[in-house]
Amino acid sequence: MFASKTEYDRGVNTFSPEGRIFQIEYAIEAIKLGSTSIGVRTPAGVVIAAEKRVPSVLVIPSSMNKILEIDHHIAAVMSGMVADARILVEHARVEAQNHRFTYNEPMSVESCTLATCDLSIQFGESGGKKKTMSRPFGVSLLIGGVDEAGPQLWQTDPSGTYTRYDAQAIGSGAEGARTILTERYHRNMTIEEGENLVVDILKQVMEDKLSKDNVEVAVIRTDGAKLDIYSPDTIQRIIERIAE
Amino acid sequence: MFASKTEYDRGVNTFSPEGRIFQIEYAIEAIKLGSTSIGVRTPAGVVIAAEKRVPSVLVIPSSMNKILEIDHHIAAVMSGMVADARILVEHARVEAQNHRFTYNEPMSVESCTLATCDLSIQFGESGGKKKTMSRPFGVSLLIGGVDEAGPQLWQTDPSGTYTRYDAQAIGSGAEGARTILTERYHRNMTIEEGENLVVDILKQVMEDKLSKDNVEVAVIRTDGAKLDIYSPDTIQRIIERIAE
Amino acid sequence: MFASKTEYDRGVNTFSPEGRIFQIEYAIEAIKLGSTSIGVRTPAGVVIAAEKRVPSVLVIPSSMNKILEIDHHIAAVMSGMVADARILVEHARVEAQNHRFTYNEPMSVESCTLATCDLSIQFGESGGKKKTMSRPFGVSLLIGGVDEAGPQLWQTDPSGTYTRYDAQAIGSGAEGARTILTERYHRNMTIEEGENLVVDILKQVMEDKLSKDNVEVAVIRTDGAKLDIYSPDTIQRIIERIAE
Amino acid sequence: MFASKTEYDRGVNTFSPEGRIFQIEYAIEAIKLGSTSIGVRTPAGVVIAAEKRVPSVLVIPSSMNKILEIDHHIAAVMSGMVADARILVEHARVEAQNHRFTYNEPMSVESCTLATCDLSIQFGESGGKKKTMSRPFGVSLLIGGVDEAGPQLWQTDPSGTYTRYDAQAIGSGAEGARTILTERYHRNMTIEEGENLVVDILKQVMEDKLSKDNVEVAVIRTDGAKLDIYSPDTIQRIIERIAE
Amino acid sequence: MFASKTEYDRGVNTFSPEGRIFQIEYAIEAIKLGSTSIGVRTPAGVVIAAEKRVPSVLVIPSSMNKILEIDHHIAAVMSGMVADARILVEHARVEAQNHRFTYNEPMSVESCTLATCDLSIQFGESGGKKKTMSRPFGVSLLIGGVDEAGPQLWQTDPSGTYTRYDAQAIGSGAEGARTILTERYHRNMTIEEGENLVVDILKQVMEDKLSKDNVEVAVIRTDGAKLDIYSPDTIQRIIERIAE
Amino acid sequence: MFASKTEYDRGVNTFSPEGRIFQIEYAIEAIKLGSTSIGVRTPAGVVIAAEKRVPSVLVIPSSMNKILEIDHHIAAVMSGMVADARILVEHARVEAQNHRFTYNEPMSVESCTLATCDLSIQFGESGGKKKTMSRPFGVSLLIGGVDEAGPQLWQTDPSGTYTRYDAQAIGSGAEGARTILTERYHRNMTIEEGENLVVDILKQVMEDKLSKDNVEVAVIRTDGAKLDIYSPDTIQRIIERIAE
Amino acid sequence: MFASKTEYDRGVNTFSPEGRIFQIEYAIEAIKLGSTSIGVRTPAGVVIAAEKRVPSVLVIPSSMNKILEIDHHIAAVMSGMVADARILVEHARVEAQNHRFTYNEPMSVESCTLATCDLSIQFGESGGKKKTMSRPFGVSLLIGGVDEAGPQLWQTDPSGTYTRYDAQAIGSGAEGARTILTERYHRNMTIEEGENLVVDILKQVMEDKLSKDNVEVAVIRTDGAKLDIYSPDTIQRIIERIAE
Repeated sequence: MFASKTEYDRGVNTFSPEGRIFQIEYAIEAIKLGSTSIGVRTPAGVVIAAEKRVPSVLVIPSSMNKILEIDHHIAAVMSGMVADARILVEHARVEAQNHRFTYNEPMSVESCTLATCDLSIQFGESGGKKKTMSRPFGVSLLIGGVDEAGPQLWQTDPSGTYTRYDAQAIGSGAEGARTILTERYHRNMTIEEGENLVVDILKQVMEDKLSKDNVEVAVIRTDGAKLDIYSPDTIQRIIERIAE
Repeated sequence: MFASKTEYDRGVNTFSPEGRIFQIEYAIEAIKLGSTSIGVRTPAGVVIAAEKRVPSVLVIPSSMNKILEIDHHIAAVMSGMVADARILVEHARVEAQNHRFTYNEPMSVESCTLATCDLSIQFGESGGKKKTMSRPFGVSLLIGGVDEAGPQLWQTDPSGTYTRYDAQAIGSGAEGARTILTERYHRNMTIEEGENLVVDILKQVMEDKLSKDNVEVAVIRTDGAKLDIYSPDTIQRIIERIAE
Repeated sequence: MFASKTEYDRGVNTFSPEGRIFQIEYAIEAIKLGSTSIGVRTPAGVVIAAEKRVPSVLVIPSSMNKILEIDHHIAAVMSGMVADARILVEHARVEAQNHRFTYNEPMSVESCTLATCDLSIQFGESGGKKKTMSRPFGVSLLIGGVDEAGPQLWQTDPSGTYTRYDAQAIGSGAEGARTILTERYHRNMTIEEGENLVVDILKQVMEDKLSKDNVEVAVIRTDGAKLDIYSPDTIQRIIERIAE
Repeated sequence: MFASKTEYDRGVNTFSPEGRIFQIEYAIEAIKLGSTSIGVRTPAGVVIAAEKRVPSVLVIPSSMNKILEIDHHIAAVMSGMVADARILVEHARVEAQNHRFTYNEPMSVESCTLATCDLSIQFGESGGKKKTMSRPFGVSLLIGGVDEAGPQLWQTDPSGTYTRYDAQAIGSGAEGARTILTERYHRNMTIEEGENLVVDILKQVMEDKLSKDNVEVAVIRTDGAKLDIYSPDTIQRIIERIAE
Repeated sequence: MFASKTEYDRGVNTFSPEGRIFQIEYAIEAIKLGSTSIGVRTPAGVVIAAEKRVPSVLVIPSSMNKILEIDHHIAAVMSGMVADARILVEHARVEAQNHRFTYNEPMSVESCTLATCDLSIQFGESGGKKKTMSRPFGVSLLIGGVDEAGPQLWQTDPSGTYTRYDAQAIGSGAEGARTILTERYHRNMTIEEGENLVVDILKQVMEDKLSKDNVEVAVIRTDGAKLDIYSPDTIQRIIERIAE
Repeated sequence: MFASKTEYDRGVNTFSPEGRIFQIEYAIEAIKLGSTSIGVRTPAGVVIAAEKRVPSVLVIPSSMNKILEIDHHIAAVMSGMVADARILVEHARVEAQNHRFTYNEPMSVESCTLATCDLSIQFGESGGKKKTMSRPFGVSLLIGGVDEAGPQLWQTDPSGTYTRYDAQAIGSGAEGARTILTERYHRNMTIEEGENLVVDILKQVMEDKLSKDNVEVAVIRTDGAKLDIYSPDTIQRIIERIAE
Repeated sequence: MFASKTEYDRGVNTFSPEGRIFQIEYAIEAIKLGSTSIGVRTPAGVVIAAEKRVPSVLVIPSSMNKILEIDHHIAAVMSGMVADARILVEHARVEAQNHRFTYNEPMSVESCTLATCDLSIQFGESGGKKKTMSRPFGVSLLIGGVDEAGPQLWQTDPSGTYTRYDAQAIGSGAEGARTILTERYHRNMTIEEGENLVVDILKQVMEDKLSKDNVEVAVIRTDGAKLDIYSPDTIQRIIERIAE
């Protein structure tokens, strides 16, 4: 079936005879080429973490943010094409600000997730006044946040689908990470257990040796609903903790 | 005829020599890749139900809605591409709200169905001010609702055609489901019989074992004309009922 | 000549070396895939009728309208792609309403037919402010109506051509139906004779067994100039009449 | 040279290495597939006539107009694609009305011919505000009329060229008809001689047997400058006259 | 090199590896398919002349103008695609009128030539508000006129280049005509000598026998700066003069 | 895999089955064809330098600027396509001026870098009101500057990704240069050590012999935050210094 | 590598796997097909000169301008496609006039050069309000001028790159001309020595025999900053001078 396949897979919006749109499936492959990101929901908050692929000792690791703030109470961690993620997160930020301005309340995490997906599914469209991408976004986001419905973790993908998870991993190490999550995650973890879990998983699935400079960790605590991106020192303490 | 076929099937709006438009037919294949959805009309209301394909135990099943409210008295259940369904349903919601605002009465179920089909058939068009999809929508909807003409069930497909049914199934298990519907459906069912029928059919056609977390059931009762999406507990009671 | 043919037949608006536009010819093939429709003109009114292909016993046949009202005094019956017909008829309805509003008189049947053809021939055009189809309409209409010039029957086709007939059939059974029309139609039929003729022809050319639920019949009487779509019971009486 | 030719002939506006635009040449072929039309200029007026290809005895021949009024003093007769002719003639009608409104005098026949050609040559253009065809018009018109310069006959073709003739024939029987015109036409014919000539030529070049229902004849007389489309009875008298 | 060539020659604006744009070169070939046109500058004025290819004795030769007035003091004679020439000349007329209106003086011949070339080089462009051709113009013009700088003859070609000549020929007979011009033209010819020269050259390079009806001759005299298109009788006198 | 690769690499925005966008990767190759540029951050300021490929002794080397001022406190040095760099830098200049005007303070170096990347990722988009490139920018920038966060060095690439470095090299000699940077760079260099380092590296990786006319050096000092592009004489002194 | 090359070289804005854009490189080839142009800077002014390819003795050589005035103090000489050069120069003229109008001072030669390059690099873009070329400009300009920074000579190319030279040659004879320039040019030439040099080089590299009618020479003197295009007589004196 390979020959047949290649005839349908370059049109961004062409169905194959089996009813598939290959460019969306290929965009999903782009995510698998990306660095690994993980999120877990605990009653006390959402912990998100990501691998950073630091190309050189001369890089300033803090400039390679994988964790991006959307609003005080919502953050995204990404796997896949960096610039695509920035477009989606920038769009979510604007929507979240508009929501605050219009309704004088924080946007819900689900609405914020939906806003990024609405942008995702418009690729390849023309006409109308809004500019759209001419291809699917090659990125998946884990969006963590806290709102009236409590702490939540959502995943988006290039097809514009979004799903809520207790714990999820994306990127090149996702398969291994999900196996560990299934084994070790439980719903009543403390924040500290969550931190330990995500950093320990990254330690196992990353090709490079884990250090305080090549991972990012952040938490949005239920109490206060505020994003806290950990400093390298804090991350170092988690690394030491799990090494014990 | 295969060689000849492949020459016409990539243009979204190209007729083959036999007068067929293959991209619409392929979009219909996309529906067959989707999860199964079922609807039945009874004198006392419309029962709709859908399989949910839960990819992981870490997913929050309630985030994967296959049943979507259009208005208080109308709901849709979908098979096929999730994000495409969202666009159609969002369009129907706006139309339903506009109707309420303009005429101060609920939109009829047929008009609401027609509104989604009007959007479906505009794919591939350019010019004009409204934005349109550059391919057919890869989704079929069962739209259930109650209006002055009583409880009704309609199906839409990617070609923009809509048809009213007493009972209908769509998605990967549609063929098996329709066989059972033809055998067991009758027009004077009670709501409870309708619930039993749709859940029992899903039990038979789903690959995964049926549970309260991987199906959705909803009813729009004739009396009151209001959508009631069942909780997992209510679904559990139906599952137990049919197991007796 | 087949090889040569396939080189010109995918561009919607490309002439072949013999001066043919294949996409229009293929759209005409789409009509031949559709269900059969028939119309006859009598001094007392125009009788139109159509086969309905009911896919399942669970379908509500009345939801599958092949006969569509354009205005009180004009109706269309279609063969081919259902959604395309809806676009053309909706356009004709708007034109007819505009005519009534502007001139305070009903639109003539010929003007109304012309309005649908004007839309048909604009496929593949770009520029300008009006939105147009990017392919020919895959549908043929028989438009029957009564105006100051008396009862009339017109046919449209995908090339935008329209022709007036005393009696005409379109769709998959058109060839057989036309043979019978040529033999049995005469200009001084009564409405009842017309009803008998169109139903009897459908009985002969349809693959499914004729029943009150899988045909539609309507008449626009010269006296009163008002469309009357027959109920299944009325159709049943015609079926019984011709069976005598 | 065939292989080389096919590489240039599908782009509507692509030159071949010999400097030819094949799509215009193929559009001219479309004219040769059409029914035959003839026009002759006499001092007393212009006579135009056309074959009608009546597909069935159930057709109302008068609905298949090949002769179309542009203004009181100008008419066109067409060979080729019917709907294309309607667009050109409709454009010419609007131009003629605008001329009357703006200058309070009838438009000259040459200006009117030029107006249709101006539209013809814009195919394949984009940008600008006016909508244009995406292919050449597959039609040729003979435009007859009477103005201050006396009775005139003009021909247009798909390349936007227009030429004035004493007598000309277009369509499938054009070659045979021109031979007869060259032999029998003279500049001082009477209207009656002109009528006889065009009908007699149609009789010879048409495949179907000539009858009052399958030809159209019209005259624009120098005296009065008013189009007179002949009734079937008048045509019958000409047929009988030439049979004597 | 033929195989390589055909890969670049269909894009209207694509360079070949040697830096050539083939569609412009093919448009120049279109000119060589056209009828022959000639112009000569004399101190007393510019003489222009053209062959007319009269397809039939029934044609009115005066309707096939090859010499077109741009303004009282400027005229163009064309070889190549007739309708393309009309667009260029119509554009030049508008520019010339605008010049008169704005500056209250006649436009110079060079500015007028430049105006047609500005339009020529815009083919294939999109964006902006002005409509442009989607291919090169398949026509060459000889533009003759008289302004403050005296009598002048300019040639334009499809690449938008323009050059001033003492005497020049274009079209199918250009090569032969230029040879004769080089031999017989001198700068101090009288108008009469110019007339004799251009008509004599046409007589030699035309396939049809030269007559007063198949050539056009015009002169713009230095004294008065006014275009004078010769009548057939005047042309007949020149023919007789050169026959002596 | 080569055959497969070539099928996906020409669409500017097409994913390959492995999730890659080849046109971005090829644009990155364009950078490797460019001349070498280097930047190093020291506590006292940022030193940037570039090779100039002088094609002839007749060139005025100062006209071939590789170091471009964005604002008083920010400069970029480029490798790759010169004109593309100019578009990006021009965009950054406007953003920096707007920032000054709106906030009455200098733009931060990171914001300025982000502004160029936002433009980079919009290639291939259409719709909307802003004009975008139809391909990726074939250029990489090293952006050096001083703001409240101190001296900084950032790199951009064609995918719209930006990363902060202590020291970085781009262009044809980048690989060799990075090796030397890794060995010899340390964070507490003086400006002079920085100058020596970048010039010495260029000396080693350039094909042409290093001279004061074929390299550019500039520094943005922490004290004063002002760009200082060195004169050839100053460069000569550095060259002599490292030769000692 | 030839097969591979041809796969990337027709898209105007497509990178090859090596990071090259072939259509720009082919446009540079178009320049090499053009006539030769030369410029030299001397302390007393800039001398520019060009070959003219006169196709016939009947051409008026002065109509084939290769040297084009941009403003009183700036001129361009071109090699390549004539009409493309005209677009660029026309753009530069408007920019120069706008500069004078806005700032009440002459535009600098560098800014003027930059303005033409800004237009050059926009080919193939769409969107936005300004019209752009759909291919690279197939022309190179030598822009000479005098401003506050003294006499200068700049070269532009199709990639939008511009470089300042002491002396430079472009077009078909560029290679030979540059060799001679490298040998004989020195920075303290007088104008007369400059004139002798450029004319002598043209004499050597031109295929046709040099004459006062097939070369153009102009000078912009430092004193006065005013373009002086030499008459054929002045050119004749230079030719005679170098023949001594």
